[in-house]
Amino acid sequence: MTEVVDDFKAAFRLHPAGVALLVAAGEDGPVGMTASSVASVSADPPLLSFSVAKRSSSARVLTSSEMLRVVLLGTHQTALARAFATSGADRFTPQQGWVDDPAGVPDLPDAPARLLAGVRRVVPAGESWLVLAQVERVTFGAAAPPLLYVDRAYRAAS
Amino acid sequence: MTEVVDDFKAAFRLHPAGVALLVAAGEDGPVGMTASSVASVSADPPLLSFSVAKRSSSARVLTSSEMLRVVLLGTHQTALARAFATSGADRFTPQQGWVDDPAGVPDLPDAPARLLAGVRRVVPAGESWLVLAQVERVTFGAAAPPLLYVDRAYRAAS
Repeated sequence: MTEVVDDFKAAFRLHPAGVALLVAAGEDGPVGMTASSVASVSADPPLLSFSVAKRSSSARVLTSSEMLRVVLLGTHQTALARAFATSGADRFTPQQGWVDDPAGVPDLPDAPARLLAGVRRVVPAGESWLVLAQVERVTFGAAAPPLLYVDRAYRAAS
Repeated sequence: MTEVVDDFKAAFRLHPAGVALLVAAGEDGPVGMTASSVASVSADPPLLSFSVAKRSSSARVLTSSEMLRVVLLGTHQTALARAFATSGADRFTPQQGWVDDPAGVPDLPDAPARLLAGVRRVVPAGESWLVLAQVERVTFGAAAPPLLYVDRAYRAAS
């Protein structure tokens, strides 16, 4: 099994992905994490999928929330992507551009697009949960080239 | 609903994705399609997800196959990505680099990575099926920059 696991990881390092933040309201304040697994599944109804590691401290909140926000990042937001992928880093500071939201799920107006979505299905998948969520509202910010993750580095599309 | 559907489509046009071909053995020969929804879900066990439109002619074969091949494409394979996204285009020709495989699922040695996977879950998701598959074997070809799809165009990472 070890060999296929290592090969699997090596293959997906070659596979580029857009970078998003997943944000939800926890009992002790907002939680968030960087994700490179957000994908469009269906347009009508508008459904997206993503996965979160079960061991992640935010996984329980993200999978059990009524509503979460998927923030699609631009290349000017690499520092944010790193912060939300690093345990103990500063999160949800006003300096990062977060603004409060009536539902307790902070918004990031500086990001090119933010999708408010309700969790519809949570499928156990090995070390992770595979989540299907229905998008209720989309908000667009300033146009910016999308942020890309490939070969363990943040990049832009050429 | 129409407004959120249009906004959802516009948001995901901004979201980059790696490009793969999904290949399986049908009763009348191999079927295949281009997909920009392939994502790593779990490393151990090695699980990936993708979605296919229910209306796609290949969807039934891809979701009911015991084994399928996920071919991660390089930038030198843009013409292949277009052919497998276009109804009626030439597919599985030797000129495209396909070679036969004992299981009837053609292989593409010229692609940077190919993952042989077994379907584990098929989740209905609006217009699509969301598929979870376990990778059994990975084969690597010549190193090549990964192919990227963003804003309805094939691109490279910068």
